[in-house]
Formats: sequence, structure tokens, C-alpha cells
Amino acid sequence: MRNEQLDKMIERASVLIEALPYMREFHGTTIVIKYGGAAMVREELKKCVIEDIVLLGYVGIRPVIVHGGGSEISELMKRLGIEPKFVAGQRITDKDTLEVVEMVLTGRINGEIVNLINQTGGKAVGLSGKDGGLIKAEKIECGAEVDADLGFVGKVKSLNVSVLEILDNAGYIPVISPIGVDCQGQTLNINADFVAAHIASELKAEKLIILTDVSGVLERPDDETTLISTIKTSEIPELIEKKVLAGGMIPKLKACMEAVKGNTKKAHIIDGRIPHSLLLELFTDKGIGTQIVSD
Amino acid sequence: MRNEQLDKMIERASVLIEALPYMREFHGTTIVIKYGGAAMVREELKKCVIEDIVLLGYVGIRPVIVHGGGSEISELMKRLGIEPKFVAGQRITDKDTLEVVEMVLTGRINGEIVNLINQTGGKAVGLSGKDGGLIKAEKIECGAEVDADLGFVGKVKSLNVSVLEILDNAGYIPVISPIGVDCQGQTLNINADFVAAHIASELKAEKLIILTDVSGVLERPDDETTLISTIKTSEIPELIEKKVLAGGMIPKLKACMEAVKGNTKKAHIIDGRIPHSLLLELFTDKGIGTQIVSD
Amino acid sequence: MRNEQLDKMIERASVLIEALPYMREFHGTTIVIKYGGAAMVREELKKCVIEDIVLLGYVGIRPVIVHGGGSEISELMKRLGIEPKFVAGQRITDKDTLEVVEMVLTGRINGEIVNLINQTGGKAVGLSGKDGGLIKAEKIECGAEVDADLGFVGKVKSLNVSVLEILDNAGYIPVISPIGVDCQGQTLNINADFVAAHIASELKAEKLIILTDVSGVLERPDDETTLISTIKTSEIPELIEKKVLAGGMIPKLKACMEAVKGNTKKAHIIDGRIPHSLLLELFTDKGIGTQIVSD
Amino acid sequence: MRNEQLDKMIERASVLIEALPYMREFHGTTIVIKYGGAAMVREELKKCVIEDIVLLGYVGIRPVIVHGGGSEISELMKRLGIEPKFVAGQRITDKDTLEVVEMVLTGRINGEIVNLINQTGGKAVGLSGKDGGLIKAEKIECGAEVDADLGFVGKVKSLNVSVLEILDNAGYIPVISPIGVDCQGQTLNINADFVAAHIASELKAEKLIILTDVSGVLERPDDETTLISTIKTSEIPELIEKKVLAGGMIPKLKACMEAVKGNTKKAHIIDGRIPHSLLLELFTDKGIGTQIVSD
Amino acid sequence: MRNEQLDKMIERASVLIEALPYMREFHGTTIVIKYGGAAMVREELKKCVIEDIVLLGYVGIRPVIVHGGGSEISELMKRLGIEPKFVAGQRITDKDTLEVVEMVLTGRINGEIVNLINQTGGKAVGLSGKDGGLIKAEKIECGAEVDADLGFVGKVKSLNVSVLEILDNAGYIPVISPIGVDCQGQTLNINADFVAAHIASELKAEKLIILTDVSGVLERPDDETTLISTIKTSEIPELIEKKVLAGGMIPKLKACMEAVKGNTKKAHIIDGRIPHSLLLELFTDKGIGTQIVSD
Amino acid sequence: MRNEQLDKMIERASVLIEALPYMREFHGTTIVIKYGGAAMVREELKKCVIEDIVLLGYVGIRPVIVHGGGSEISELMKRLGIEPKFVAGQRITDKDTLEVVEMVLTGRINGEIVNLINQTGGKAVGLSGKDGGLIKAEKIECGAEVDADLGFVGKVKSLNVSVLEILDNAGYIPVISPIGVDCQGQTLNINADFVAAHIASELKAEKLIILTDVSGVLERPDDETTLISTIKTSEIPELIEKKVLAGGMIPKLKACMEAVKGNTKKAHIIDGRIPHSLLLELFTDKGIGTQIVSD
Repeated sequence: MRNEQLDKMIERASVLIEALPYMREFHGTTIVIKYGGAAMVREELKKCVIEDIVLLGYVGIRPVIVHGGGSEISELMKRLGIEPKFVAGQRITDKDTLEVVEMVLTGRINGEIVNLINQTGGKAVGLSGKDGGLIKAEKIECGAEVDADLGFVGKVKSLNVSVLEILDNAGYIPVISPIGVDCQGQTLNINADFVAAHIASELKAEKLIILTDVSGVLERPDDETTLISTIKTSEIPELIEKKVLAGGMIPKLKACMEAVKGNTKKAHIIDGRIPHSLLLELFTDKGIGTQIVSD
Repeated sequence: MRNEQLDKMIERASVLIEALPYMREFHGTTIVIKYGGAAMVREELKKCVIEDIVLLGYVGIRPVIVHGGGSEISELMKRLGIEPKFVAGQRITDKDTLEVVEMVLTGRINGEIVNLINQTGGKAVGLSGKDGGLIKAEKIECGAEVDADLGFVGKVKSLNVSVLEILDNAGYIPVISPIGVDCQGQTLNINADFVAAHIASELKAEKLIILTDVSGVLERPDDETTLISTIKTSEIPELIEKKVLAGGMIPKLKACMEAVKGNTKKAHIIDGRIPHSLLLELFTDKGIGTQIVSD
Repeated sequence: MRNEQLDKMIERASVLIEALPYMREFHGTTIVIKYGGAAMVREELKKCVIEDIVLLGYVGIRPVIVHGGGSEISELMKRLGIEPKFVAGQRITDKDTLEVVEMVLTGRINGEIVNLINQTGGKAVGLSGKDGGLIKAEKIECGAEVDADLGFVGKVKSLNVSVLEILDNAGYIPVISPIGVDCQGQTLNINADFVAAHIASELKAEKLIILTDVSGVLERPDDETTLISTIKTSEIPELIEKKVLAGGMIPKLKACMEAVKGNTKKAHIIDGRIPHSLLLELFTDKGIGTQIVSD
Repeated sequence: MRNEQLDKMIERASVLIEALPYMREFHGTTIVIKYGGAAMVREELKKCVIEDIVLLGYVGIRPVIVHGGGSEISELMKRLGIEPKFVAGQRITDKDTLEVVEMVLTGRINGEIVNLINQTGGKAVGLSGKDGGLIKAEKIECGAEVDADLGFVGKVKSLNVSVLEILDNAGYIPVISPIGVDCQGQTLNINADFVAAHIASELKAEKLIILTDVSGVLERPDDETTLISTIKTSEIPELIEKKVLAGGMIPKLKACMEAVKGNTKKAHIIDGRIPHSLLLELFTDKGIGTQIVSD
Repeated sequence: MRNEQLDKMIERASVLIEALPYMREFHGTTIVIKYGGAAMVREELKKCVIEDIVLLGYVGIRPVIVHGGGSEISELMKRLGIEPKFVAGQRITDKDTLEVVEMVLTGRINGEIVNLINQTGGKAVGLSGKDGGLIKAEKIECGAEVDADLGFVGKVKSLNVSVLEILDNAGYIPVISPIGVDCQGQTLNINADFVAAHIASELKAEKLIILTDVSGVLERPDDETTLISTIKTSEIPELIEKKVLAGGMIPKLKACMEAVKGNTKKAHIIDGRIPHSLLLELFTDKGIGTQIVSD
Repeated sequence: MRNEQLDKMIERASVLIEALPYMREFHGTTIVIKYGGAAMVREELKKCVIEDIVLLGYVGIRPVIVHGGGSEISELMKRLGIEPKFVAGQRITDKDTLEVVEMVLTGRINGEIVNLINQTGGKAVGLSGKDGGLIKAEKIECGAEVDADLGFVGKVKSLNVSVLEILDNAGYIPVISPIGVDCQGQTLNINADFVAAHIASELKAEKLIILTDVSGVLERPDDETTLISTIKTSEIPELIEKKVLAGGMIPKLKACMEAVKGNTKKAHIIDGRIPHSLLLELFTDKGIGTQIVSD
């Protein structure tokens, strides 16, 4: 082996070693990852996220994945001639829509993520909120959040995480579709950010990490230099009231607030468009994006 | 309580007691059930099958469900403008079809069964062959079985049942979609009867039970009085060659033969149109339908 | 199979299914059964009780049996020329009597119950209060309960249920003779109802069920129509003071009160003369006999 | 403390230390003890045997006790007016006799031993062959051993020692009555030496020790100086044929032979009239009595 | 065997039996032994201590050994030309001295004790405070205890006893060198009495036993008749202030006080020059030396 | 964060990801590392080796360290006025030398390695062959290997690795001094390469890696370009006979041969002077140094 080759290899080994303090810090902890946006669509990003998740598993961290599904749902609906309708950013979910939502989330996206993790050397098992009674939900009443009947849209009422714990203890990475069931057995479509937040609290996660398509929480949505690095949960209500935040950011911030007010140590809203954003957040000093911490 | 009421109740208690010898016999054993046909379509039959499965779980039997999905797949294909094509009874599965197959099986039917079991008091978890690397498959080569390229249709190459055992030990009933993955990570559509047969062998099941829409193996398909109660595996090749059997019965018989030649004790082809056919098979002396036994 | 035969079988299967909600409710709970009276004497009733117990074991309920022994003790005493003496319904137990009591309870009745359970397909182990130090007792002082020295008659002072838990976890049904030992090692004869009540509390039983030879607590002992379905523990002292209850019922009611004031969820005094009375109590909506509940 | 007192105490400590090599040798092994004869009758011997057993438990040896019951059975029979009958030293056991046998063995002697062990600081649980299906027996056919119908007398057909293992793992000393059950559920009286031998084999015991009322196997029964220290199993048939042995010794020797030909390492016939004979056998170099070893 | 020989053996067996009540009392408890002084130097005493420790292990007690090393350290220092220096009885430990201390304690004495235990039939593992991060220490600041810089001398800051528990559960006897590590990774020399006291508290030991070269705490150090049998922790400060105690006794008393104020039940300062002093303390009624008890 | 900074971080993350296939390959396997030479002397190399070991632990590999001690032993001997003597490269070990060897190995070097691993975030426990009876050795007889009495020098006779397994299962990294004990309890000095080889075989290690001060096995010791990448065990005898190898390499090759002929999958002789040589060997395609494989 020529020397320069060797030097390069030694340098690479050093990079691995630099990750040691973080491995130590996060060893044995649970990290709940809300997977969505560009990182779930663009092939090269998808590859990076999956690799990151598998690596976390190998270094003794317990990743739990909750995924969304936006664009693919609307696409299939169009092919089936069902017109997607939204009120205040929320999908109105009638019976036909619900069927499509579940088929796309559980029958396509979930399986794809599971398969990619397995092909990359991890061990994943896909779950929806139906499996093992994981997510007990209740319908969002008409007028409770928006001034309309959202249809079969629910919120988390309680979780039964024992199936997660069983899989986790056996070394499987759970991949979860945000589908819940109410007490009558009715399937409900739930916002994935909040499902992730609830699961993070229930599992006493070290971190909730939400992958988005922006660089974090921006004071002025169109100006990337206004990124807020750290937000305390007590500052969130005021921040929302100011009405300066991008619309889509508000439920994400609320989910983070819930998680951190629960049993999650920290929440992060990070830029899923950056390759290996998960590793950058976990394995570097400064981290990336916006972190939400308790007071 | 009036006496006649009491007498009726006592009689009902006696019926429970009559099941005792069967409970004893099957306690702790695994029963793999291929769930399909009318029993998966007609609401009142569906209810019965689910109740039977939950009851088995309560009396210490370990049911494992493998389901099919026929008619719903074709239906969604039609809505999407994809024309179902079959060669010798097998679905030709191109990329679009495969997507539909997976969405319907994993995203709709599987979740529905899981949900029904949970609502009826059991604890179920849905899996496809992707989960935990359960089903490693390989494409059926063009010409191997039929004189055509079936597309993304595979057969079981090997199983990794550890995820089943983990769930089973924790009291969960696994519900499995017959979807496999080949070594390149390609999803493949597999015949559910054979998936059930392989799983039964791998789990050293007491029984493989295939629910069908006929009363069993009939010597003359149009004459129910020609039901064969017991077939030895050695008799099956000749029976098939005679070409008297109904077409759909042949792969089922082959699957049963594989299961019994493997580590399954007995296989049964029973009439899923009879309410509580599972209990009748397991908890009565004579059983129902056709049983396949080793020589 | 002829159709009417099949219909009958389906109907029987339905009866099993009707027990599902109760199996779910009581799954994994402990039911302490005080076994005595006619149900321990008449062969056909004995058979029913044993079958019921075995069935409970198979459906995931943990039965614990405490038995009495009345008539057989007196019978052997007579054969040995010892005259049974009673004060206020309690047996005066001198040294010779004690020997007979222990031989009959532990050496005859206990073994018979254990054997019957095993022959019926269950797994039972017989214990007296000596085994594993199960029942620490103390002598009832002269005058404490009745105005006489009862001899070697004791009451439960403390329990060491670890032997029960070990057997229970291994799937054995414990069958217990109401014999205790005091701190000097002296064997003492104890009322079986109270032993059952103490064990039910210690094991945090779902139910204590006392099998008797009456239909329950009757407001007028000679009028079966005056059955009280439900009694709150707070009502018991008054009920006893009224002096309308049958004599033998009072200690049973007190035992039930102790159990329910302890950690037992509910207590039941039921009619052991009804075949399968245990199943009727557990697996029907209305139950039978009298239930004692906390306020 | 005065010096001579101290010196005495130091000497006593040295005695404990001398037992160390034996503790090491037998640590974790199972010793099956057939308890009977004078050691079960004379109070001061009884105390010694019980103390020895408890000590064995404390130093990490796993004692299993099988007891007989001879004289007490005949005594109760006489009190009940049943005349004991023997053929060739074996008790003819009719239905009434069987009842007495079981009551005395299981209801009196067994409980007494259990109680004494517990009072001495051990933890014992009494079992008969009924408990947990421990001893499956079969009737000795008329003429098979003696030229008469012995009645309800059986021999061991098979053992189910799982209940022993469960208790043993939890630190309980099992005390076993030699009562078995045949496949019809019929109780049978069995020779305790053979029960002990079978259990020793099944548990792969280090030793079977039979306590007797003689100093061991004597070549001339009336001459204690003819004690045989060691007998190989191959020498036993000849020794029996010579017809010089005391009558009662023959079945004991046969039992030892069966044990050693099975999975027991060694068998010992020792003099239970010597105080602490068990400790002397186990914790001294020369041991006492006669040892039976494999060839 | 001649009778007098037998009588002697029976007497010896009785001595073993006399230890039974103590075996019962201490079964399963942890006894922390500070091993030092003459008992670690004189061969015949060493043999006795090791035998005692091994015996404790065999009778179900969990011994934990902490050893000192005084004279051997000074000896090696002299051979290396390093002059031992002491201030107020404490060794001034510069870098060279520390190296010697660690080599002698961990590299010679610890291994010797471990080896002796193993040769005597026990199972020991040697540890220093470095192993598994067992002893986190901090440097004793200049002037904190004596008016000088003691150098690399520390005190226990915290313990991580999980490595002890793991070894203990597997039946190993831990033998511990009193070496600690501070938060910068600096090795520190620590007083073995205090290490033993901290470990006793952390393990909730039944007893801390300190082996010394005096008969216990003497009111007048030169008069053995002034031995104090029992001291309450509340009496210790006054006793120290009186300035009548031997100098070396004061830190030992303080260590005992800390242990008993922590989670140790009792502490004992005993005379290691008496053979089998450990057994005498544990297995006789009066014990030996001085016991320190809580108020 | 500026873009170029981010790009650099992303690149670093990619390096971690490149290690994924190796993590997968070696996950859960045991790697025995013989640690010695420059890598144990030069501070910056020492740091790298320790970091590598800790990293292996974090990514689910089970490292076991066996260390040597050459130069430090001779150094202390000189300070103590003992002259080191060697015959054919082997240290003649008299009583005084043995004492020094043990003190340096177990009392200095072992503790230092353990401490460094702990400070770097790992969990290590130091052991010598005495601990838990790990290494049973026997003296090398005079003339057996060299024509002289080597004194207290031994070879491995058998291993008792249960203490390793217990520590390993609890996540501790064992660090082992090559000290053994013979059947009389005599301490013996053993060649560390062979200790490592035996342990690797006994633990069924994936790899034995010997860190040396050369780049591997060189056909001409003075020419680094003659490095042999792969040697089959069958080629080793011939290679040794050729007498071209460097003297110190021969025992290392023999040790590797023993390991691979035993249960070790592969052995490696690598250049410990290269920083992070362990990671380079394990986590790159080509590996470094010489690998010894079975035929």
C-alpha cells in the first residue's frame, strides 16, 4: 500500500474516532425520527437517511421511524379520480380518501422504508397504529381545530408501546405509519408529526428529530439567515402568535413542544435536504437546524 | 333465574367442557391458517373466522394467519385503468400491478384483519414478507411454471421466522401478507397458499388449515358427495395427474403436500363458507373437509 | 356430514364464541375457589367442578383451590371411636381429632382432587399450609370466638405465597388443605373459607368464589326467592346483626368481607349444587348466587 | 473470653473447615435420600436426620427425600379393624388398606417431615406421586413378583420430574410419598426404595442413600464384622442367589442396582441408627455402610 | 469402624449442625471483609482466613474482600531506593511511590489472595478500583486531613458496583485493591478500611468485618481486659475525642461509623491473629472483638 | 453554518457510512487483540489503539485484549538489581523475576490499559490468568523448547473462559495479563501471543489480531516490499523451516496457526506502528499486514 493511500485511510479512521464521544452520549437511548419531505422523495437523500438510520442501530442507538406520505397520497387519489381537498392545510378525509391514505402509507411507503433498511443491513419491521393496538385515536371533532369536518382525521388518545418495546429489545427498528384506530375500531388518519411526538414521549426518547424541507425555524420564512438555533418551550406560544412563522412550521413546533413537555429530552427540526442530516445533528458539536428544549 | 333459563345455561357450559380434550391436545401448538375466499369477503363469515382465531389464542393455541387478496386487487386495478391479466390462473404482475397488489394486501386487507382481531379481543400484528426479512423470495423464471413471463411473481426461497417467534412469545397473533423480497431487494408477489405452507413447516406447526370456497377435495368437482376425507401425501401426484380435480385445488394440494413433507403435522383444506369452520375442524372429532397426512 | 348435524355443530361453536368476552376479561387473573359441600361429594357434580377448573386453566385463568372436608372427617373419627364435638358449629379439635383432620384433608381429599384434575387434563399440585411455610397460623384463644377451648384450631396469621407463585408460573393449579402451623411448629386446623379469603387477598385475586349448598345469601333462609344478588361490604355487619341469615352463612360472609376489604376484587357465594356453577358465574353476564363487592 | 473457651471455639471452627473438600465435591449435586426405619421413629434420630438434610441444603447440595411408612400404617389399620396381611414381606393392599396407606403416608408422615424441615430452617414442600403427575405407575400383576395378588400395589412406570425441578430451582426440598397413579387414575402403593431409585436416576443424582436399621450389607446377617464396604452392580445377582443376605436387604440392593445402572453415580445403604449418618457418609473420607458402584 | 472413632465423627458432625442457625441467619447476605495485618502475613493465619472465606461462599454467604498492603509496599520501595515517608500515619505518595503501591497491591497481593481462594476451592476474581470504573476517587486536598500534601492519596467519591454485582451473581468472590481513579484518570491510593466501608454500604452488606492485629477496641490500648464489646455509632465521636484510643484504631472506627450510618447493618473490628476469626465472629453466639451498631 | 463547513461535515458523515458494511459483517463477533510493541509504548499510538478498541465496543464488536510487557519488566528488574537473562529469545524466569513480571504486567500495564479504555468511554475489567481460574498452565519442561530450564515459564493447558463470557455479556471489555497458574497453584509467566491464540480459539473469535512492530510477515525481513498478504496454515511449517523469517516472527506465526487450526476464523499480524491499525484492518476492504487463513 502506498503511503499516501495509507495516510488517507488513517485520516478516515480518525473521522470514525471523532464520533466516539457522541456514540457514548447516545448509546442505548431512543431517537424518534419523523421522516418526510424531500428526504423521502429524492433518491440520493433517501439513501442517506436510510444509511444514517442503519448506522444508528449499529452503534447502539435505538431509532424509531414515523413517516408521512403527502404527495403520493394525492397522486393516487388523482389517478382514482378523487379530488384532494384541504382546509387550513389539513386534508379532508372521506371514506374513499381514507382508503387511499392507508394503502399508500401502510401498503407502499412503509414497506419501501422497511425494505431499504433491510437491504442496507439493518433489521426493520413496519407497523401501523393498528398493529398491537399501538395507536388509540379519536376523531377530531368538527370545529375543534378548523372550522370544518375533517372527516376521518384523528389525534392520538393513548399509545400501547409494548409492541415497540418487544421489537426494540430484539434489535428491530420499528417503522410506523401514522394511522390510528378509535374505540369503535374506525381507522383514522393522523398527523405524523404528532404521532412521532407522542411516541417520543412514551418511549422517553433522548431526541425527537423532525426532517423538513427548510433549514429550521426561521424568524422570517424567506430569510435563511434568521434561523433560530434554540427555542425554549415557553417561547413557542408567543412565537406562534406573532404570525411570522411559515404556516407548515406551526404544527411541527407544537408537536415538538408536546414532546419536550412530555418525556422527550430534546426535539429538533432539521433540514432533511442536507445529506446525512441525522448524523450531522447527532454526531457533531453544533448540530444543525433548530432545537427545542425545556425551560 | 328461572329454571329453564338455568338449564339452558348449564347446557351451554357443557358445550365448553366438550372442547376440553381438544384444548389439551392442541395447547401450545402453532396452527397456520391460510385465510381467503368467501370467509374473507362475506361479513358474517369474516366475523366468525376472526372470533375463531381470537378464541384459539385464548385457549393457548398459537394461530398464524396468512391471507390472500384476489378480488380486491382486480377491483382497484380496474379503477386505476390497469387490466388484470392471467396465464393459467396466475396473475401476470407488471410494475403497476405489483404496486396495486402490495397496497391492497398490506395496506388494506392486512390492516383490516389486524384491526378486527384487536377489536374482538385478540392482539394482532400485521407483517409482510419485508418485515424483519421474513420472506426471501426469488422470481419464477419465465417458463418454469407457465409458458409466460409472470413478471414480479416469486416463490419462497427461505424464511427468517425470528420476528414471528418474538411476536408469538409475546402473545401477538401474526397476520402475514404474501409479499416477498428477492436478494436485490425487489418486491415479489407470491401465492399465499405456498407462503402458508412454508411458514407452517418452518414453525413446525401442528396444522396448516387452508380456507377455501369448496367443501374440500372432491373427486368430481361438481359432486359434493365425492369429498375425500383423508389423502396421504404419496397419493397426491397421482390424484393430480388424473386431471379430475378442480383447477384451483391443485396448487392448494401441492402446498399441503409441501407442508406435510416438511415439518407440519397435518394439513387441511376446509370449507370457509361454513361458519366457525376453524373451530369445527379443531374442536370436533371428525373434523371437516379434507385432511392431508404423511404416509 | 348431514346438514342438520353440521348446523348443530356450528351452534356449539357459537357457544364457545360467546365465552370470548369473559375469557378476555379474566385472562391472566387469579380466581380462588373454596371447594366444599355437595360439589365435593356428589360424583356428577365433582366431575363438573373439576372440568370447570381445568377449563379455566386452559383459557389462561389461574385457578387456586382451597378445599374443606367436613363429613369425611367425622366419618373416620367415628370409625376410630373418637366422638366429634362441636361448639357453636366449630369442631373441637383435640390431638386425636387433629390427626384425623390432617389425614383426611391432606392424605385423602387433597390427593383425590389433584388426581381428578390431572386425569381431566390439567396439572395440579397438592399443598397443605405446611408446604413451603404457606400458612403461618395462631391458635384461637379460648373465649376469643366461642366460649370454649376449641383445641388445635387456628386462624391465619400470615401467608408465604411464594410456593404458590412458583407453581402458578409453571402452569400448575395449586390445591390447598386448610392446615396451618404456628410459630412453635404446632399443626392447627383452620376454617377453609378464611384460608381461601386470605389467599385471595394475598394473590390479589380477581375473584374469591365459595361453593356452597345454598343458592346464595338469602334474606329468609327458607325462601329462595329472597336471594340477595349483590351485597356491599359495608352492609354486611348490619346484615349479620339482624340475625335473619342462616348460621353457616355468617362465617362465609365474613370471609368474603375480609377478602374484598383486602386485595380481592370481588367475592361470590354460589350454589355448588348447580352443575358447572363456576363457569356459569364466570362466563355469563348475570352470574349466579350472591356477589360481595366493595363500597 | 477466656483462652480455653477460645481454643475450643477455634477447634470447632476447624471442624467446619474440614468439611470444605466435601462441600466442594458435592456442591450443586442432587442427593436422593430414602428416609425410613429407626431414623424416622426415634425422636433424637429424627432430629439428626432433619438437621443433616437442612444443612445439606445450606451448603448448596440438593436433597430430595423419599419416605416410607411401615409401622404407622399397620397401627392405624389395627385401630380401624383392618388386619394387615403380607405375602413374602409385601403388604397386600385392598381398597381399605390403600386408603389407610395414603392417609398415613401423605396425610401424616409427609407433613411431619416437611414441618420439621421448615422448623429447622429449611424450606420443604411435600409431594405424593399424584402431584404434577410425578409418578406414573402400573399394577404389579398377580404372580409377577409373588405368588399372590398384591392388590393396589404398583411399580414405577415413568416419572415426570418437572415439578421436582421447579421446586428445586426455587430452593425447596421435595419430600415425596411413594404413591403412584396408573393410567386409569387408580392410586397405587409403591415400594419407597424403588421410588427413590427411579427418582435418583431421573435426576442424575450424585448419590442415592438408603437409611436402614442395619449397619449395611452383611455377608452374615447376624455378624456385623462381615460388613461389605463396596459392591459392584455386577456382583449383586450372585450375592442375592447365595441366599445369605437378610431378607429385607434384597429389594434395597436391587433398588440400588437399578439406580446405579441408571444415571445415579453411587448408591449407599447406611445405618440410620447412627446419629448424623447422612453427614458421616457425605462429609468423611471413609463414609459408612455399604456403597454400590458401577463396574 | 471402631466405636470411639465413630463417636468422634458423630461429635464432629454435631459441630457442623451447630452452625446451622447462623447459616440460616446470614444466608444470601453480603459480608465485606477488610483483610490486612498479621492475618495477611503469617502463613498459617492466611490459610485460615482463606478457608473461612471459601466456606462462607459454600454456605450461601457472599463475601467481598478488600485488602491492604502495608509492609510489602515499604519493602519494595526500599529495594528501589525510595524512602517511605509518613505524616500522621499516612503514607506520602509521590509518583514513584504510587507506582510501587499499585504494583504491590494489584500485581502481587491481590493475585496471591485470588490464587489462594481458587486453590482452596472457591472462585475469586481480583479487581482494583479501575476495573469497571469501580472506585471513583478524589485527591485529599493539602491540609484537609493532615497538615501536608499527601500526594496521590484519595478518598472514595462514588462507587460503580455493577461489576461486583455481575461477578457476585455468577458466584465469584471479588477481591479488591484499594486503588481509585479521579475524574482526570489519575490513579490514587486510598485507605482500604474506608474503601471496605463504602463498598459495604453500597452493597447493603449484612456486616463489615475489619481484621486487625488487636483484640478489638480497647479503652486502654495496653490493657486487653478493657475491650469494648459493643459501640453505638453515636458514641464514637466522644470516644475519639477522649484521646485514649490507639492511633491506628481511629480511622478504623470512623470507617465502621460511616458503614453503619450508611446501609451496612453492623460493623466489626476483630482480632485477625485468632485462627478462623471470621467463622468465630459469624458462627458463634457471642462473636469476638468489637461490634459497631447503629443507635 | 457556512456551506464549505457543511460540505466538510457531510463528507465526514460519509466516512462513517463507509464503515457500515464492516459493522454489519463483524457485529456480535469476538475479536481477540494481542496488544504489544510500539503501540503499547508510544503515547500517540497508545491513544489510537485504545480509541479503536472502544469504538469496536460501541459498534457491537466484542474486543478481548491480551497484552505483553517486555521492556517495562526488564527496566524494573534492572532497578531492583536483577539481571534479565534470555535463552533463544525467551526470558529465564526465576522466583524474583517472576515477581517482577507479575507486578509489572498485572499491577502496572494491565491497570493502565483498563484505565485508558474507561477514560475513553469504554468499560474494561482487568484480569490475569488467576482470576476465575482463567488460565490453567503447566511449566515448560527443561529442554522441551529450548535447551535450558526457563524457570517459571509455562504454556496454556486449559482455559476456563466463563469469567470472560460473564463480563462480555455485561458489556465489559476484558484486558488480560498472560499469567497462568499450574495445578499446584504456582504462578507461571506465559507468552502473550499464545495466550491470545488460545483465548481466540476458545471464544470462537472471528479474528485474532497481533499488533507488532513490523508491517507483517516479510519474506526478507529487511525488505518491506516482500510482505506476504495471505498465508495458509499449511504453508507455515515450510515457511519456518526456510529460516528466512525474522526470529521474533516465528512464535507469532505459530500462535496464529494454532488459533486458526482451532476455532478462530482468521488471524492477522499487523503493523501496530500505523495509527488506527485495528480499524484499518477491520474496516477497510484490503486490510493491512498479513492474514493467516485455514486451507
